[in-house]
Amino acid sequence: MKKLINKPEDFARETIEGIVLAHPESLKMVNNSWHCLVRADEKKEGKVAIATGGGSGHLPVFLGYVGYGLADRVTVGNVFASPSAEAMHEVDKAINSGAGVLHLYGRYGGDIMNFGMASDLDEMEDIPVKEVLVTDDIASAPKGSESKRRGVAGLVFAYKCAGAAAEKMYNLDEVARIAQKTVDNTRTMGVALTPCIVPEAGKATFSIAEDEMEIGMGIHGEPGIHRTKLMKIDDVVSNIMEKILEDLPFEDGCEVAVLVNGLGGTPKEELYLAYRKLYQILSDKNISIHRKYIGEYATSLEMAGMSISLLKLDDELKEMIDAPCYSPFFEQNH
Amino acid sequence: MKKLINKPEDFARETIEGIVLAHPESLKMVNNSWHCLVRADEKKEGKVAIATGGGSGHLPVFLGYVGYGLADRVTVGNVFASPSAEAMHEVDKAINSGAGVLHLYGRYGGDIMNFGMASDLDEMEDIPVKEVLVTDDIASAPKGSESKRRGVAGLVFAYKCAGAAAEKMYNLDEVARIAQKTVDNTRTMGVALTPCIVPEAGKATFSIAEDEMEIGMGIHGEPGIHRTKLMKIDDVVSNIMEKILEDLPFEDGCEVAVLVNGLGGTPKEELYLAYRKLYQILSDKNISIHRKYIGEYATSLEMAGMSISLLKLDDELKEMIDAPCYSPFFEQNH
Repeated sequence: MKKLINKPEDFARETIEGIVLAHPESLKMVNNSWHCLVRADEKKEGKVAIATGGGSGHLPVFLGYVGYGLADRVTVGNVFASPSAEAMHEVDKAINSGAGVLHLYGRYGGDIMNFGMASDLDEMEDIPVKEVLVTDDIASAPKGSESKRRGVAGLVFAYKCAGAAAEKMYNLDEVARIAQKTVDNTRTMGVALTPCIVPEAGKATFSIAEDEMEIGMGIHGEPGIHRTKLMKIDDVVSNIMEKILEDLPFEDGCEVAVLVNGLGGTPKEELYLAYRKLYQILSDKNISIHRKYIGEYATSLEMAGMSISLLKLDDELKEMIDAPCYSPFFEQNH
Repeated sequence: MKKLINKPEDFARETIEGIVLAHPESLKMVNNSWHCLVRADEKKEGKVAIATGGGSGHLPVFLGYVGYGLADRVTVGNVFASPSAEAMHEVDKAINSGAGVLHLYGRYGGDIMNFGMASDLDEMEDIPVKEVLVTDDIASAPKGSESKRRGVAGLVFAYKCAGAAAEKMYNLDEVARIAQKTVDNTRTMGVALTPCIVPEAGKATFSIAEDEMEIGMGIHGEPGIHRTKLMKIDDVVSNIMEKILEDLPFEDGCEVAVLVNGLGGTPKEELYLAYRKLYQILSDKNISIHRKYIGEYATSLEMAGMSISLLKLDDELKEMIDAPCYSPFFEQNH
């Protein structure tokens, strides 16, 4: 297990400790628990609070998206493990300023269960709560079963747009509507070249040959659509884009935001190779790129691979995606 | 060779094409050559121009540091290979606005030769030119031979401070003085867990056992100080910090900027584990962290590993390090 860590069982907690030491002006713990983090600035009276959460091992997901114009709190579990409903409820109480809480998270079994229980606890204490699940991974369930799909890097678009709506003082129904609209217009697909190693497990999440890649793999190593010989990046991108474009569909003349996301072990150079081909494909289809994000936005520890996400924009979503935001991991001023 | 690329011989050029397609508002080619990139905004009359350059494969080094408050142009070679003196001279002509050019780059054989020839060509055309070499890697030569050391992640501090001085309209001598002062006060040491593969070579830059790490390795895979069994991150950081602190030395009570840099294949989580220990060590020594950078700032393709850089600050360097800057890869507003 080739990692720069201390004891595997301390990995998630010590990572959070490092982050809170580095960014005390942005993030603070609730109840002195590393599982519960909220924005360090004063909460704004009457603003809808956005709550997210999930397992560790995906930085900047999830806690990197807690900040101005993004989410307000995050509950963090161990690596690839859901945090508890009680922890979620505790931070919901801390962030609610009267306008209610939106649970915004990726669709995974443990998180669905725990966020559901947290919602019940919130409601017993009269905290208004709604939930929107991010379901952007087209490789995880076929067209027609969109609501059964997993949430992957498309989370970033959901935080960005819902966070902008909350900052504009939209009410809970409206923030939830914007979040759901963002999810409905987002499609993602990825490819993995190597597995990662969960520190406490100490072994690779799956095995794959030196000359193979997995198309459509999930960010915990869930199986994809098929395994194939390593392909050229241009062919990988063409393959992914064909599936993404037809799934929504994204038609000629539409405007999109794109996210080329590295999974942790892939160098930035390769992400720009992917963007080069993506740009050519979208130009040929007369689809214009309104905004682009290229880098590591949702990872899987040291996994090598990448994903492409597209968000189809209308004027309302453009306003949200263009709004400023700030966290130590994700800043947008332009 | 597990990479997401097209033909290995096209890797560097296609990467640059992707970057220029993604960031046309920030970067443009000179003479239609992917080797020659300059800031896309108008040059400022009378401002000293900062020129850097070196091989590909180190993103965001070098071209990620071309922008407002940073460098003005970059010359890019193939992977780990120096660009030509002629290309350097061509962009020097393009960026000089009367106040001269500072060549600011990491100390490596090929780059020293080519930047030297470019300086000669510049002088023949009466372009005032000075050079400052970044020599921050304490593992590459012993104390007393500081000027023989390699340049690694400390480049980032040099770009930041010299770029701020140039933006403040300091003259060429003063910008060079600030650059040299930054280098003189910067110390870096790194550790590598895995090699990387240069696309055209198709094989690993070195071999290392599954339970070993190399302390003090250079960013092209140059040998370090010693090879050892994998250690806990706390011990790795203690080891590095002991050598860094005594080398300058950094005394009790001083103020520093720190850079915890991932080499490409190391997850952000591990960089924050390193910061956690670094913070504890500096707190114990009463050294205060004025500013911190944690992420991938100078890489070596998909190499796993990290480096720590410290810059000792006085009031003048604090003013430079705190100045705003902007490039698509490195933005500072706060």
